[in-house]
Amino acid sequence: MTRIGIGVGCAALGALLCALPVGPAAWAQTAPPTLEKAAASADNWAMPTLNYANTRYSSLTQINATNASRLQVAWTFSTGVLRGHEGQPLVIGNVMYLVTPFPNTVFALDLDHAERILWQYTPTQNSEVIPVMCCDTVNRGVAYGDGKIILHQADNTVVALDAMTGKEAWKQTLASYKDGATGTEAPMVVGNKVILGVSGGEFGVQGFVAALDIADGHILWKAFSEGPDNQILVDPQKTMSLGKPVGADSSVKTWKGDQWKIGGGDTWGWYSYDPKLNLLYYGSGNPSTWNPNQRPGDNKWSMTIFARDIDTGVAKWVYQMTPHDQWDYDGVNEMILADLTVDGRPVPALVHFDRNGFSYVLNRADGELIAAHKFDPAVNWATGIDMNKSSANYGRPEVVDKFAPGSSGVNVNYTGICPAALGSKDEQPAAFDPETKLFYVPTNHVCMDYEPYPVAYAAGQPYVGATLSMFPGPGGYMGRFIAFDPVTGKTAWSIDDQFSDWGGALTTAGGVVFYGTLKGYLRAVDAKTGKILYDFKTPSGIIGNVITYMHGGKQYVAVLSGVGGWAGIGLAAGLTDPHAGLGAVGGYAALKDYTTLGGQLTVFALPGS
Amino acid sequence: MTRIGIGVGCAALGALLCALPVGPAAWAQTAPPTLEKAAASADNWAMPTLNYANTRYSSLTQINATNASRLQVAWTFSTGVLRGHEGQPLVIGNVMYLVTPFPNTVFALDLDHAERILWQYTPTQNSEVIPVMCCDTVNRGVAYGDGKIILHQADNTVVALDAMTGKEAWKQTLASYKDGATGTEAPMVVGNKVILGVSGGEFGVQGFVAALDIADGHILWKAFSEGPDNQILVDPQKTMSLGKPVGADSSVKTWKGDQWKIGGGDTWGWYSYDPKLNLLYYGSGNPSTWNPNQRPGDNKWSMTIFARDIDTGVAKWVYQMTPHDQWDYDGVNEMILADLTVDGRPVPALVHFDRNGFSYVLNRADGELIAAHKFDPAVNWATGIDMNKSSANYGRPEVVDKFAPGSSGVNVNYTGICPAALGSKDEQPAAFDPETKLFYVPTNHVCMDYEPYPVAYAAGQPYVGATLSMFPGPGGYMGRFIAFDPVTGKTAWSIDDQFSDWGGALTTAGGVVFYGTLKGYLRAVDAKTGKILYDFKTPSGIIGNVITYMHGGKQYVAVLSGVGGWAGIGLAAGLTDPHAGLGAVGGYAALKDYTTLGGQLTVFALPGS
Repeated sequence: MTRIGIGVGCAALGALLCALPVGPAAWAQTAPPTLEKAAASADNWAMPTLNYANTRYSSLTQINATNASRLQVAWTFSTGVLRGHEGQPLVIGNVMYLVTPFPNTVFALDLDHAERILWQYTPTQNSEVIPVMCCDTVNRGVAYGDGKIILHQADNTVVALDAMTGKEAWKQTLASYKDGATGTEAPMVVGNKVILGVSGGEFGVQGFVAALDIADGHILWKAFSEGPDNQILVDPQKTMSLGKPVGADSSVKTWKGDQWKIGGGDTWGWYSYDPKLNLLYYGSGNPSTWNPNQRPGDNKWSMTIFARDIDTGVAKWVYQMTPHDQWDYDGVNEMILADLTVDGRPVPALVHFDRNGFSYVLNRADGELIAAHKFDPAVNWATGIDMNKSSANYGRPEVVDKFAPGSSGVNVNYTGICPAALGSKDEQPAAFDPETKLFYVPTNHVCMDYEPYPVAYAAGQPYVGATLSMFPGPGGYMGRFIAFDPVTGKTAWSIDDQFSDWGGALTTAGGVVFYGTLKGYLRAVDAKTGKILYDFKTPSGIIGNVITYMHGGKQYVAVLSGVGGWAGIGLAAGLTDPHAGLGAVGGYAALKDYTTLGGQLTVFALPGS
Repeated sequence: MTRIGIGVGCAALGALLCALPVGPAAWAQTAPPTLEKAAASADNWAMPTLNYANTRYSSLTQINATNASRLQVAWTFSTGVLRGHEGQPLVIGNVMYLVTPFPNTVFALDLDHAERILWQYTPTQNSEVIPVMCCDTVNRGVAYGDGKIILHQADNTVVALDAMTGKEAWKQTLASYKDGATGTEAPMVVGNKVILGVSGGEFGVQGFVAALDIADGHILWKAFSEGPDNQILVDPQKTMSLGKPVGADSSVKTWKGDQWKIGGGDTWGWYSYDPKLNLLYYGSGNPSTWNPNQRPGDNKWSMTIFARDIDTGVAKWVYQMTPHDQWDYDGVNEMILADLTVDGRPVPALVHFDRNGFSYVLNRADGELIAAHKFDPAVNWATGIDMNKSSANYGRPEVVDKFAPGSSGVNVNYTGICPAALGSKDEQPAAFDPETKLFYVPTNHVCMDYEPYPVAYAAGQPYVGATLSMFPGPGGYMGRFIAFDPVTGKTAWSIDDQFSDWGGALTTAGGVVFYGTLKGYLRAVDAKTGKILYDFKTPSGIIGNVITYMHGGKQYVAVLSGVGGWAGIGLAAGLTDPHAGLGAVGGYAALKDYTTLGGQLTVFALPGS
């Protein structure tokens, strides 16, 4: 008889070697790289956002518009957890790291040895945290730095794990899920600092961003979104808003009494950083409660873009996009730092696609508002943003009363508002291509009816105060993937989808844009023309963000499947009866005809070794 | 701006049509085919076993030994359920049917419309059934016939669903999970009959096979494995065993008192059928309890191959392979009906690879024993099968006492027994290639220590009476995929694997054999040489059986991933501490370094449209 070895991936080593342990980690012989060094190589995906600018633009070119149609699935990995898989893996050298939704198991996979599991870590968390998570049990990714993997658990514990062994290095807790505060976002590491925030806008959690020391987890600074100046870390004279100092008590004077203490403004989106300016950028979420008439005032600094000195936490400038929110248009979406040309002059821009349906271009150095455009023509709650610098309403949306819940009282159903509460775009990150100068934006084309009602606050209990029903936008579809110029407001091309595009985009120097759909398709698109080059049905709906990396001379593209998140909460929580009261599940109920719960990584590459 | 349609799978139809419902079923315009018609087309996989002969040999040739290395993943589907996915889908025309482990959700997928979910059905079952399932919450597949999909639920309810709509046609219950009886096997449909059995050998369930009328579910006949002649449906004069009538009371006289009432002999394996002989074939499982000294006698007809008239249920012949089982070597593995040449004469053979490590060749017409060989050289519990027709022990194993638990009393640890309780092969089906005349067998190369102890029977409680520890066989590995000739006992080639090969095999006229591994690899192998042509890492460990079908002119190969079953119960039930008492989890604990829980279908095809 003939005896055959164990096969591909082990063929070169022979059966025996393959069966042996590969050691504690693939870096056993060397120290793990610094984040700076890891991020400098295009082979890696060393940060959740790829880079501090949040461009999600990779310079890899092996996969390009000419050959992307020949992509194949290279390997796959089940995470062993169902429900919504937002976020993305990291790739650092020969190790891939990924984290699951609750219970937040972290896996380290050895790319050199057929993706063997080097280590896995599952924190001990009380399952009581699950109902406190407003929009599925998601986690948007772990971060890397100082040889550690940083996990922000659902229950708000932050844990640092030795990247080689998975052993706990330190733990820190900044807020309690018993008060409604949860952890869902991906931290960002800058130098010795771990930057992170908090979720809980539906529970009245006073939002904050904090910097922890990556060496031991101690708090370096903590800056709230609302409250007295010493809590929100603003300098009344030096912190600017649209060219003017914010003045004293800029936040508390826009709230009734001490409502700011339960005022939301949570910080569960993405973080950006400009090393030259030494500024951290992020947005704050909705003011709590969703019933606007209960909280008169502008509710500053909810719905605000913050630029903070990363060493001190003090804000250099702020810009509130949606004062006195009446729609739940959280401002947490990513800030993309891109050097653009506006009217012939170079601008160090910050570009942001907001839930409220407007794209914003600001000068990231000083917060100057340069452009604001609707990126979905369906948007009807405001006619535009007042761009007249001499106007008293400069920078504010021009609100259409009939689409503004609360404007004629509560317990009234305001109908046909576009976009819906989950926004023209939610956390799913856009990507920027410096070649085409276009932004590639996965969007929601969804409208709603919204009825605000009075609600009482109780710690750890939902503090929502509105009933809503969501439905497809004009044309009867719910998603648009767009190539958009935020300076001119022009859409270069768009791809309509039956359901929202809730997976984050990737751009590449190969001229290919990637994103995933709620039905589960991983799609490669020509960046210039919008032509679909490749469209593969992964096991479950995609709400994860596409990444790319190079290993062993081969470029890979990877994405997590696992339907869920807000758009998929109906499936994730078993609410799929199309005849039941749909509420926030809305038009997504039909997703059950296309996909089911999952939790898988699918990795693609071109054929050949 | 340019607007693009929804993409592949919808491109030809345009975006709007794609968003519309596709109707209640793809057969809306025509009646569903008969099973006979569906099974006659090689494009379909209309029975769990492909055909009544259980060959799992497909005549499709588009994928062959020359091009199999170019296979790609065509599409994937998450079942939304974790734990062990044994069994296989059905494909009938443009619809694929598959069933999950508990809660046994059935999906109908429309292959004409990008695998849209035509319907899904989840029975209401009490989760109390889960701990009653000895070896994970598996289900080995639904069956098709009379326009219905037949599901044997975990809780033992049999339900017939309209194949077009998923609506319940009828329900029947033959035994109660409260007594330890569960449903795990795939039914078989023959004419107007649904053939099915019962699981529960670890709970003292008196095994049976039954025939239900597919029109309304009423019981046509029910035949027990042990008991009085009128319960086991034997004719003392006409039912033969190794050429002799079994005589009166052939079963009860081999049991102490009425122990046969809790005697096991369960029937959770596969069923075969010879249309010419009108005989049904299957094997019965272990006698209960596992402590052999507690149940003196041969314990007939546990561990027995049955040939029954399919219309009456009366046995034409029986053959007990492992009298008075001392190892848990259930006889339920598939019976492959193959016309072989033995010593120059054609034989209508039945070939069976038993848990006990011996392959058996019998004349399926009369039960004559033709050949019996070890198919794993590690087998040591018996030196061979007595083939001397004039011997009093004719057809019985020649047992080695030191490897026979109970032979020197109970509460003694019998060490180094090969194979382990899960056998040299378990339920994972082998396949037969009529071209090579070889059988392709996924096997376990696992040994054990076994300590029997007294146990009391209580309805619905485990009735095991043994402690065991399993470990890799000689050479330090646990799996072998073999190409084997059961007439000569010769192994043509074998592929060693670190873990058991617990996924069922597929042979094809293209000269390619397919099977899956516990690490999750779907493997295509040259049937003649054993050369691995393709080796793809699916999301989770494979314990499912590979199928193939043709759709739209393209040949597909499909397999379920989802580690579990007996071999994967450690992962499925969270028992992966390598330092804990391993018991029946044994050497499989290291699986946690390679794979995690899953539940996915992966479908492969050659590139191009």
